[in-house]
Amino acid sequence: MTKPGGNFFEDFKLGQVLEHATPRTITDGDCALYIALTGTRFPVHCAQPVAHALGYRDRTVDDLLAFHIAFGKTVPDISVNAVANLGYADIRFLSPIYPGDTLSTTSTVIGLKENSSGKNGIVYVRSISCNQDKKEVLSWIRWVMVHKNSNTPAPETAVPKLPEFVAPADLAIPAELDAHQYETAITGGSRLWDDYKTGERIDHPAGMTVDDTDHTLATKLYQNNARLHFDDFAMKQTPFGRRLMYGGHVISVCRALTYDGLENAFAIAAINAGTHCNPSFGGDTFYARSEVLDKWQIPGRNDLGALRLRLVGVKNLNLAELTATHVEQNGKTVYHPNVVLDLDYTVLMPRQ
Amino acid sequence: MTKPGGNFFEDFKLGQVLEHATPRTITDGDCALYIALTGTRFPVHCAQPVAHALGYRDRTVDDLLAFHIAFGKTVPDISVNAVANLGYADIRFLSPIYPGDTLSTTSTVIGLKENSSGKNGIVYVRSISCNQDKKEVLSWIRWVMVHKNSNTPAPETAVPKLPEFVAPADLAIPAELDAHQYETAITGGSRLWDDYKTGERIDHPAGMTVDDTDHTLATKLYQNNARLHFDDFAMKQTPFGRRLMYGGHVISVCRALTYDGLENAFAIAAINAGTHCNPSFGGDTFYARSEVLDKWQIPGRNDLGALRLRLVGVKNLNLAELTATHVEQNGKTVYHPNVVLDLDYTVLMPRQ
Amino acid sequence: MTKPGGNFFEDFKLGQVLEHATPRTITDGDCALYIALTGTRFPVHCAQPVAHALGYRDRTVDDLLAFHIAFGKTVPDISVNAVANLGYADIRFLSPIYPGDTLSTTSTVIGLKENSSGKNGIVYVRSISCNQDKKEVLSWIRWVMVHKNSNTPAPETAVPKLPEFVAPADLAIPAELDAHQYETAITGGSRLWDDYKTGERIDHPAGMTVDDTDHTLATKLYQNNARLHFDDFAMKQTPFGRRLMYGGHVISVCRALTYDGLENAFAIAAINAGTHCNPSFGGDTFYARSEVLDKWQIPGRNDLGALRLRLVGVKNLNLAELTATHVEQNGKTVYHPNVVLDLDYTVLMPRQ
Repeated sequence: MTKPGGNFFEDFKLGQVLEHATPRTITDGDCALYIALTGTRFPVHCAQPVAHALGYRDRTVDDLLAFHIAFGKTVPDISVNAVANLGYADIRFLSPIYPGDTLSTTSTVIGLKENSSGKNGIVYVRSISCNQDKKEVLSWIRWVMVHKNSNTPAPETAVPKLPEFVAPADLAIPAELDAHQYETAITGGSRLWDDYKTGERIDHPAGMTVDDTDHTLATKLYQNNARLHFDDFAMKQTPFGRRLMYGGHVISVCRALTYDGLENAFAIAAINAGTHCNPSFGGDTFYARSEVLDKWQIPGRNDLGALRLRLVGVKNLNLAELTATHVEQNGKTVYHPNVVLDLDYTVLMPRQ
Repeated sequence: MTKPGGNFFEDFKLGQVLEHATPRTITDGDCALYIALTGTRFPVHCAQPVAHALGYRDRTVDDLLAFHIAFGKTVPDISVNAVANLGYADIRFLSPIYPGDTLSTTSTVIGLKENSSGKNGIVYVRSISCNQDKKEVLSWIRWVMVHKNSNTPAPETAVPKLPEFVAPADLAIPAELDAHQYETAITGGSRLWDDYKTGERIDHPAGMTVDDTDHTLATKLYQNNARLHFDDFAMKQTPFGRRLMYGGHVISVCRALTYDGLENAFAIAAINAGTHCNPSFGGDTFYARSEVLDKWQIPGRNDLGALRLRLVGVKNLNLAELTATHVEQNGKTVYHPNVVLDLDYTVLMPRQ
Repeated sequence: MTKPGGNFFEDFKLGQVLEHATPRTITDGDCALYIALTGTRFPVHCAQPVAHALGYRDRTVDDLLAFHIAFGKTVPDISVNAVANLGYADIRFLSPIYPGDTLSTTSTVIGLKENSSGKNGIVYVRSISCNQDKKEVLSWIRWVMVHKNSNTPAPETAVPKLPEFVAPADLAIPAELDAHQYETAITGGSRLWDDYKTGERIDHPAGMTVDDTDHTLATKLYQNNARLHFDDFAMKQTPFGRRLMYGGHVISVCRALTYDGLENAFAIAAINAGTHCNPSFGGDTFYARSEVLDKWQIPGRNDLGALRLRLVGVKNLNLAELTATHVEQNGKTVYHPNVVLDLDYTVLMPRQ
């Protein structure tokens, strides 16, 4: 049951299971709106014949749309009292999600660490989202700093071991997926897995401005009810001075921008790590830079491979002027003030 | 037939039936957009297994989305020349509406009263909306002040008797509805009908800013074509100085805000009365306060009961600072300038 | 294959065929969003019983929504390096498109003319969009001025002959369409084909403001990725100073505004020619004026006829103040600065 007012640090116990409320059926309506909100063009999500040719029974729901909806379910129980969303890891896309599927999310507390101030602490959860057939479709770890609301003694510190990245052997390749007949004409991008090189960098050509209505519509569509995204009146009284953009939507917009250059990266298999380096607001214009971190063959498959990519999201700056993602500031190395996203993720891509 | 330029007061005759144009099929697309526009999370509208568990054959269309669409059909014939929308009463939600259903609306003139100025008059209509099977799904009374456009003599005054509220015995409980197996885990709210007390007040915690694009998208989705919502150029030349938000959308946003505290109020059975106390505009942030006006058992049913609720919508003001909905102004008692909505409605809620 | 960076003038060859990428399945979600973005009310697109009564197997996708999506597919190959979109002609709506259909677009280069400067040239293409059954559903010619990127010699000049308008005999009337049982009550407009007169002018009463989020959501929904619509940061450095509205969306908004006065113009059969006379931006309010250019009977059919219409779109000006679409400026006749659209198109309308 969702605790009115949300959970505070002392409410979480190691091993505790939280069944999140409000399951959600994802429909064609959600998918259409997601296209309008991001401009995404990956055809496996919006062209039925393309999905069929890959062995899917229908267009798949965009991986990030599904993730945002599944993630949004955890907010009332996990992060509504969060001081900060500190990070996430080991995000696995386990099985295709189709329009009509209903997602439910459950979280397990896998780590707790009270901060030395005694005023808050870090909660680590593993969240799993299942479809209506109880099949696991998404799994991820995240950790948030949550306020304490009482003087209960600190729990024993337990910090889970987090994988640096999802290993190739752990990537879930859908059984029905078959890229042998893949035709690049349907994406317009001629480069396949074999054509990319580790270390290669791509400055994607397009930019996208996101207005306040865009990101608030998106975050409401995801049913993520964290208030700082919606309540401009209250946010005016904070140092931000205005509504803050949901970081997940920044990921979506940047992923959509990567289309020109990564046209055949048709599925996200994992998100290994991610940092929201600076806040984003309505009116910001985003640009995307990709780097190929690694290339992996998929055991037993010659029709597709995996690319581990770094996605750097930049706002209000021509990419040509971004010489480095980090700068020196008061003797410290920090993110460049225009860098908003530093994501490490893994895609599937057909082979020649 | 819709009269070009709309009907004026002298065009309405007691007993006249107006068959409104442009029936509308409500789809999953409309439902997804409604989630994005309001942030609503009531799972019976967006999670198929939850709807099935309640006996419905599919997710039901949000009661207010259906109402706004049905209501919008009446605008070209009834209120396009309205001086003011004065009120509505006896709004009954008669039967569940499902994605794929097509609504058509018909109105009957049930009252006429020319104002003493002779320049305008009040028209009372009973409107009924049917689905594609001619089944009545919605019924309501509203009254509007409409301009006169000629010197025709005043009609005989006829003012219908309006019920103060829809009596418990008149609430339409869908035959297929069965809440015996209802699980609160799916909403996250543990309180059921038996847990609420008459007189209880709830200040719902979240706030929602509605931008100009939000409310104009919503009102276009509802196909309500009252021009003052859309034409910023013309509205700039009025005392408002800008587009006016459709009051119905304010109801929708406030209803969505009540989720945290009324999670199990899964269906609206009636709207008894409502006042749009002050105008709302793009950029306003809304907050919602509920009061339990009454509790009713449903004859012959032990699985659910009805709550009569007052919903007070407030803009740009912390609810904690709202000590009363009314204030004294020049010796008169008027609504507090930040109160925008005062709604009296009835919901269904499962029992323990 | 889409050329990274897009095609320049020297990349186009007479007779060359370009198979555009990213086919698109149009769903109920797209249709709902289109209603919200334009306020359109033509019931054949949003009311299943109305569509059935006309012989269609389902609601048809709005003609312009389908056109914008089909057209958007050509942008990466044809016009991403365009100096200007010069015009289009002979746009034919060949077959109804239903929710669930998937559109793919192919273009053939039918004309080339290098400009005397040697810096750019005009490319003429015929584009054809097919559904998933390879049935042609849309066909159009457009011509764009494209930059040269090298010193290749000019190709032989070839300028196609463009029809002034789609002749009545060339209008595609769907075989399943039967308007004998058409009832005007469903649109609210009593005037049918026989009631309109050549030369007649209609100033449609409503106005519609389009915000930045509206037109960018629309253009992203159409998957038209021309950057000047989306990248406010880059556009701030151009003489426009801001994002430019996609001209096609202006057509959509103005077409929706024509509903009051042309309620029974249920299908667009052709667009004969069109000019975007002045640029449009977020915040502009649009008004529509129609003129009946011609009336055509449809050979072999007494249930419907065709009207050739001129649609003049005006922004931020009361239509009553628009005495002429053109004005004298420095001795030249140019479009009135508030006129944004001059469209010549043909609709189908039932007969009495």
